[in-house]
Amino acid sequence: MKLNHIVEVQQFRKKELLEEVFSLTERMERLDETGDSSLLLSHTPRKKILATLFYEPSTRTRLSFESAMKRLGGEIISTEDAPHFSSMVKGETLEDTIRVVASFSDLIVLRHYEEGSAKRASLVSPVPIINAGDGPGQHPTQALLDLYTIKKELGRINNLKVGLLGDLLYSRTIHSLVWLLANQENIEFYFISPEPLRIPSDITVYLREKDIFFKENCNLYDISSILDVLYVTRLQKERFRNKEAYNAVVGSYVVDKEILLSLKPDTKILHPLPRTSELPSDIDLDPRAVYFKQAENGLYIRMALLKMILE
Amino acid sequence: MKLNHIVEVQQFRKKELLEEVFSLTERMERLDETGDSSLLLSHTPRKKILATLFYEPSTRTRLSFESAMKRLGGEIISTEDAPHFSSMVKGETLEDTIRVVASFSDLIVLRHYEEGSAKRASLVSPVPIINAGDGPGQHPTQALLDLYTIKKELGRINNLKVGLLGDLLYSRTIHSLVWLLANQENIEFYFISPEPLRIPSDITVYLREKDIFFKENCNLYDISSILDVLYVTRLQKERFRNKEAYNAVVGSYVVDKEILLSLKPDTKILHPLPRTSELPSDIDLDPRAVYFKQAENGLYIRMALLKMILE
Amino acid sequence: MKLNHIVEVQQFRKKELLEEVFSLTERMERLDETGDSSLLLSHTPRKKILATLFYEPSTRTRLSFESAMKRLGGEIISTEDAPHFSSMVKGETLEDTIRVVASFSDLIVLRHYEEGSAKRASLVSPVPIINAGDGPGQHPTQALLDLYTIKKELGRINNLKVGLLGDLLYSRTIHSLVWLLANQENIEFYFISPEPLRIPSDITVYLREKDIFFKENCNLYDISSILDVLYVTRLQKERFRNKEAYNAVVGSYVVDKEILLSLKPDTKILHPLPRTSELPSDIDLDPRAVYFKQAENGLYIRMALLKMILE
Repeated sequence: MKLNHIVEVQQFRKKELLEEVFSLTERMERLDETGDSSLLLSHTPRKKILATLFYEPSTRTRLSFESAMKRLGGEIISTEDAPHFSSMVKGETLEDTIRVVASFSDLIVLRHYEEGSAKRASLVSPVPIINAGDGPGQHPTQALLDLYTIKKELGRINNLKVGLLGDLLYSRTIHSLVWLLANQENIEFYFISPEPLRIPSDITVYLREKDIFFKENCNLYDISSILDVLYVTRLQKERFRNKEAYNAVVGSYVVDKEILLSLKPDTKILHPLPRTSELPSDIDLDPRAVYFKQAENGLYIRMALLKMILE
Repeated sequence: MKLNHIVEVQQFRKKELLEEVFSLTERMERLDETGDSSLLLSHTPRKKILATLFYEPSTRTRLSFESAMKRLGGEIISTEDAPHFSSMVKGETLEDTIRVVASFSDLIVLRHYEEGSAKRASLVSPVPIINAGDGPGQHPTQALLDLYTIKKELGRINNLKVGLLGDLLYSRTIHSLVWLLANQENIEFYFISPEPLRIPSDITVYLREKDIFFKENCNLYDISSILDVLYVTRLQKERFRNKEAYNAVVGSYVVDKEILLSLKPDTKILHPLPRTSELPSDIDLDPRAVYFKQAENGLYIRMALLKMILE
Repeated sequence: MKLNHIVEVQQFRKKELLEEVFSLTERMERLDETGDSSLLLSHTPRKKILATLFYEPSTRTRLSFESAMKRLGGEIISTEDAPHFSSMVKGETLEDTIRVVASFSDLIVLRHYEEGSAKRASLVSPVPIINAGDGPGQHPTQALLDLYTIKKELGRINNLKVGLLGDLLYSRTIHSLVWLLANQENIEFYFISPEPLRIPSDITVYLREKDIFFKENCNLYDISSILDVLYVTRLQKERFRNKEAYNAVVGSYVVDKEILLSLKPDTKILHPLPRTSELPSDIDLDPRAVYFKQAENGLYIRMALLKMILE
């Protein structure tokens, strides 16, 4: 199947497309081992060039895309501080910048602080756009790597009880992953969050419409033993009224050794990173803690997507 | 012909050199289509390395050079924030920095805030220097891409009526382009600017000496119908005494749909970008608006120059 | 011999290892001339990727490593501003960042402001770490390039009278070089510094234990005529009580033309750069001034180390 712009996770509704992405991702993961040079980008005669255009820093995501492109034998031009494009002149539009960068590159990875920016970019760009986060909007490659990690670790992306822990209101990662999972079969969601950071109602409405089981306001201790996946995100202090409000609840959202005791042997703990106190480092060696593998999987997902888009 | 340092546009006085640059530029533009790998840099056995050394941000120019080098199969080492070189110690000279960077690279693209810096760099550098803007001085590759765009769009760089609109006092782009055009045959210049931003007298003196036709203080509406080229630059608010002074004149320097009606069918509108209100985006689709093609041409000009310098 | 992490200069205690590094460095230096492509990194099938992870800017060191990697045919992913990794969340540990970057790269060059950081990184990293400066700690590749420069310029690294001039207290470069030299044969050290910036006592204790000759509080004018090597570092104003204290002594630590007259014809003057007034530029053309060659040697040392680590 042909991929062009990747703007939102809803483009991956079709199971065949997901399967194709995941199958290529697995081959990318074993590239060093198999030495399969057909996975690399072909020259034509020059190498393909990816531009990373980041309006806010996200070094982790940028390096992941850049490493993916380089592993494929492609090239990078990079800007970590894209506001400089318009620093000499207030008000160059995103559209103008995209048109210019598109003339220098074969594909643009865009990170921007405004929801909808990736969509706007895709409407004017003569080269494919990949959304690497558009403010409170989406970050589709993160959601795909999350789902791929579940598939790889558990062998399936259906018949799952999934706990989502932390800031469920503002985490675009959570929203996109819930949407992707909701399109698989027999998924149950358990939402675990402080009251002011509950999953948004547009998502619960969507789940009800699709007749998908979910439970809000879960207590981590009550449900930990039934979960197949525990997806953890940070609680940001800034989201709370004051320090007292934060301190009052934060303890209930820590995946500590006690929680580990209650999890099933094959439950997988995911986290988009960076983490803070919600995942104490003394659980890192537990085989159920797969968040560093998850970060690595981001590399392979992006290699697969770049290959599919560019060839 | 052999090119080494590119410091100022006056190095391109000879028609044969310009023709050679433009001819190679055209071949570079069709590289993807022709697949002519002889245009790429050859390995010896290692790849050539270009260093971008930018003392002030200019992401557009930097990415254009970097993309050009990568398209040729070369490599880049990059610094967007060259003042860091001397951040630990006040007072490392440009000369010292150049000597060190030259030992790491085969060619240096230098952007600096001081006029004459590229010349100074060229005097100590064992590798070629390309001036990518030296403060109020020159930006020769911009002037070359402007001229190339005219040649490509109109088929000639002589017998032209050229309107130059906006800030004619401070725009180094304008100064270099006027010089380059003044060395072609039968060019007429029409300068359109607010009184405080008139073309500098050293340029008008030069044109009078060479007996080249020009007219100052033109009104855009009066002359638009006779122009072959309309080259537009920004009016920066900061150049005016106050906001009122700016607001009083800015409306006369906007290329809007009404102006389009008065232009000839084959007039070409150029702009070095970024643009603001002087070029409303609703004229972008007019075939006479070639400023995005112009930005793209910068890539091909730089590929040609890099190839000529490095081989 | 196999190299993995490079954390401290003490790893180069064995003469055989130093000789192997220096011998490969010489071959790297002549790569352009010999065209010996066996020196380049081999593909497997993809190119090796080096990540530069800099928590403080050091453009000189970063570009040297990046150029070295590119000359070997390898690839770079780069971050000049690694604190961005944790900008969204206070408190991501270095260990977590290293684990993530290691999954994107084959080797990490780390610059960090905390002593011991490179060691900590090496303890968790699945890929090799090269210490490119850990605060007041070490910068082993700088010490190796210093020693290589002595060997190349004088033909030996034993039987040397070595003068060390400037800030001997805080310069990690000086400390590592003294250690490396102290492990060669028949070295005499002459320490020339203001009283408050004397060589630390742990070093003098070490030299006494190993029964190595050294003299503190030397006057540059008194001893300049006997030196084989004069290694100069900056005196930073900030290290002094006040401007008066700095001004009172700074003149005695300038290597000017008068000093040149007293040096032997084959004395070599080294400096890690950047320099300020301690090395006036009017001595640059003297053949004994080898500091720019020294900077260039950094490239070849790093090529050799990267090749040894990665293959």
